[in-house]
Amino acid sequence: VLRAGAERWVWTVDGSVEGVHFDRRWLSLEDVGWRSFQAAASDLAAMGARPIAALCNLALPESTSRSELAALARGQAAAARALRCPIAGGNLSRSRELAVTTTLLGRAARPILRSGARPGDELWLIGDVGLARAGLLALERGVRVGPALRAAVAAWRRPRALVTRGLGLVGRARALLDVSDGLGGDLGHLAEASGVRAIVERARIEHALPRTLARAARALGVEALDLALAGGEDYALLAAGPAKLRPRFARTIGRIERGRGAWLEGARGERVRLGPGFDHLAGITCTPPASRRRAKRRSRSR
Amino acid sequence: VLRAGAERWVWTVDGSVEGVHFDRRWLSLEDVGWRSFQAAASDLAAMGARPIAALCNLALPESTSRSELAALARGQAAAARALRCPIAGGNLSRSRELAVTTTLLGRAARPILRSGARPGDELWLIGDVGLARAGLLALERGVRVGPALRAAVAAWRRPRALVTRGLGLVGRARALLDVSDGLGGDLGHLAEASGVRAIVERARIEHALPRTLARAARALGVEALDLALAGGEDYALLAAGPAKLRPRFARTIGRIERGRGAWLEGARGERVRLGPGFDHLAGITCTPPASRRRAKRRSRSR
Repeated sequence: VLRAGAERWVWTVDGSVEGVHFDRRWLSLEDVGWRSFQAAASDLAAMGARPIAALCNLALPESTSRSELAALARGQAAAARALRCPIAGGNLSRSRELAVTTTLLGRAARPILRSGARPGDELWLIGDVGLARAGLLALERGVRVGPALRAAVAAWRRPRALVTRGLGLVGRARALLDVSDGLGGDLGHLAEASGVRAIVERARIEHALPRTLARAARALGVEALDLALAGGEDYALLAAGPAKLRPRFARTIGRIERGRGAWLEGARGERVRLGPGFDHLAGITCTPPASRRRAKRRSRSR
Repeated sequence: VLRAGAERWVWTVDGSVEGVHFDRRWLSLEDVGWRSFQAAASDLAAMGARPIAALCNLALPESTSRSELAALARGQAAAARALRCPIAGGNLSRSRELAVTTTLLGRAARPILRSGARPGDELWLIGDVGLARAGLLALERGVRVGPALRAAVAAWRRPRALVTRGLGLVGRARALLDVSDGLGGDLGHLAEASGVRAIVERARIEHALPRTLARAARALGVEALDLALAGGEDYALLAAGPAKLRPRFARTIGRIERGRGAWLEGARGERVRLGPGFDHLAGITCTPPASRRRAKRRSRSR
């Protein structure tokens, strides 16, 4: 967060690397451009900031053709238009693997941090979570993408940063972040930064999950709740704030208490600890080796 | 250039990719951190801007150790301190090859563009050019780095963005850029952007070259002038402005005329066209294949 005259500007940088963040078997280059831009913009949404402009650094293999570059740029441009965030410039260089690094500036009257949650706050979910994970799972398994999975694959290929929702939370939410690593893990970040305990109530989150997710879960033979808790790449928002300030578009999925950590609470009050390692699907997917090892290391080191 | 309240902010992004921009046989990871940061900061120097802050995106191979990461960060931090530009944050991800992307914001009362040169202006060189190229040539050839080449290798390994000089040109220079691709090529950019002809006078530039460059050129058996015209990674500044506003630290190496292109003018008025393809050393170095192909493509397409 920077002081720019009387304003506060929010600044972020995010990288998408082939083989780590995306796999071209399952994404067109237009998708790659779109996703990398939306992922970076989600960092602004997560602070209640309005995009000002973006710069993009493209590292391209020697083999990249003009039409491939054009497709990548088309995806970026479409995302930039959808978010009303002009791409003001950038840089091009060679590399062995395709990588897109996007930096964005945004304007925030009062940036919302992840550290402001207080005991007594409600826990809000804005947007859907789990669908993108279902889409990735379907692609990894190579199953036929029928009607039940179409929305899931689209959610993974074409996520949307919830910038307008983020702006709508200013003056309402006391803490905010975007779900990029998985709801369980990111909720742990919110709890840690705020020095509180975050409780997801099972009945409430199950009620908040969309029908498309239930259908996708059935088609994949997994639990919708597992998809929701482990899924990250939908770029939903997770907020904490007082009940009386809850906006209409936010669904309450739990509450903030004194204490530590992120927990899932069942109907009889029984609790399971959530965290970056909480991923019931990790064993059954065929995630590329690099990201699976990464996930493991993460759960070990935290 | 962004309007930030009553101020103008300048924003840049730059990438350094292993095997394209640097080779770890010849650079420590501390050097890689230092160079990538200085290269990005040079874009601010080239507009007469004072750094505000930086964000860094690191893409690291799985094999990167903690101590390697620490060395890279140490180099970045040393450069950031030298330039009084705090690193405010960033992003980490995996990748197959090491890549550092740096984005900087700077403040500029009146940003100097490359498009303001006018016929009648002098052409100024600020800082040294050619030494870094000599250093790279020495390393590529694997020659012993004796006293004659030590300054050259240091210039290549530890360049310095001329931020203070850039600030000293505000209100004096009408056009400014940094020499990152080679003096000949970058002068072509200045001439094109300004819609003028830029003339380097041979006697003047030879007079402006430092003794260390002459010594390094002798040790390598090449012409000092060729090193100066082809060399880029010193991050010298090239400016155009009226004679009466020339600051003490700027050396006049030529002039701006009506016309087009960048030219080298000999003692009897004979002219040779300069440009990105003007590199007498290209044939005799053993540049890594990737960058050599890149250089070729560039000279063909322009």
